[in-house]
Amino acid sequence: MASKTLSIKKNILSANAEKADETRGLLDNSNILMINIMSSPGSGKTSLLMQTISHFKDKYGIAVIEGDVASSIDADKILSQSIPAVQINTGGGCHLDANMVRNAIEKFDLNKTDIIFIENVGNLVCTADFDLGSHKNAVILSIPEGDDKPRKYPTMFAEADIVLVNKIDVLPHFDFDIAAFPELITGFNPSADVLLVSTKTGEGMDKWFSWIEAGLKEKIKIH
Amino acid sequence: MASKTLSIKKNILSANAEKADETRGLLDNSNILMINIMSSPGSGKTSLLMQTISHFKDKYGIAVIEGDVASSIDADKILSQSIPAVQINTGGGCHLDANMVRNAIEKFDLNKTDIIFIENVGNLVCTADFDLGSHKNAVILSIPEGDDKPRKYPTMFAEADIVLVNKIDVLPHFDFDIAAFPELITGFNPSADVLLVSTKTGEGMDKWFSWIEAGLKEKIKIH
Repeated sequence: MASKTLSIKKNILSANAEKADETRGLLDNSNILMINIMSSPGSGKTSLLMQTISHFKDKYGIAVIEGDVASSIDADKILSQSIPAVQINTGGGCHLDANMVRNAIEKFDLNKTDIIFIENVGNLVCTADFDLGSHKNAVILSIPEGDDKPRKYPTMFAEADIVLVNKIDVLPHFDFDIAAFPELITGFNPSADVLLVSTKTGEGMDKWFSWIEAGLKEKIKIH
Repeated sequence: MASKTLSIKKNILSANAEKADETRGLLDNSNILMINIMSSPGSGKTSLLMQTISHFKDKYGIAVIEGDVASSIDADKILSQSIPAVQINTGGGCHLDANMVRNAIEKFDLNKTDIIFIENVGNLVCTADFDLGSHKNAVILSIPEGDDKPRKYPTMFAEADIVLVNKIDVLPHFDFDIAAFPELITGFNPSADVLLVSTKTGEGMDKWFSWIEAGLKEKIKIH
């Protein structure tokens, strides 16, 4: 049973990786940067996106793929920004996959798009296993969740290109060793950037915006 | 593909439910109450358990099943309380299942056990689908996660016998409509209790302890 389950999982992941690579090729041809945003429920994915869209929407063509288990609460917020957005309702599924994302991308006008953000399902476990065809993985960990999460959910943090430590404004109210945190992440993932931000006060958001623009420039230089 | 996946999932869930029912019967014969604690990562499952064990361990036989994706951080904390505890390391799996729990239970001396607590994997999606053979499901939602989570992860809240709203001590620092929250839960799940607690300050914990003892008494009355 266990080995049969493992073999099914391996096949699913390998088909997923193939589709993801194909998607990345398609985006590369159009000079589009795609960023997959992952975190626990309530870490601040939607708030981060709302501020990021506001900041960039007059400068770049932004599109959003919004993953939800149920409801359209987040998608409705994103649509209020008047940018192209597609909601994927997984109907109970715990993560997005490369097929779902590809179908969503085909609804965008790629000639008018520079950056696609994916808001994945709120889940630190399942989402880490599925390559969606994005160029960058951004993982949010919020201060109230605690500084032990990278050790408890190592795959997610090993896959991250950037770790955003959100809700830095409430640091005084929680036991979170912020001084030791960047080194902890480096231990799992030497190439990941770590940024301290507050989507509420705006602290650190300029560095996140610069990180995105650096990703865009890197993309244009390569192609 | 989709229907094949659905059918595999249906078979897995039905085998799981059968094993869970069998486990419940076994526990009923020994007058043991089993409570499955679920939440997002970082909502306070381990803190709640630590305080609950301290409160009850001289009065009742307590045992703990500790579910983790990786690491033994939580299990080590629980073992420091000198009570029987079994760690299940899912090796990347996003939830416990009835088989894993049954194997763990067989390591306890049931004649010396009154209450078994399960700390499930930190995940608001996958854990909700798997009956573990417990008598009660306790779901923790912490204030920083936001009051929209029941609408975004409805299955979890529909399965709850009790919803513990944790970190109530930091309420002034977050936008969480606490006045409207109990009614929101009632909308999903009319029979669920809602308790406001802080595992940090101890606020509301007496009501949680009373809820557990009411569950124990109910159990003894039935058998």
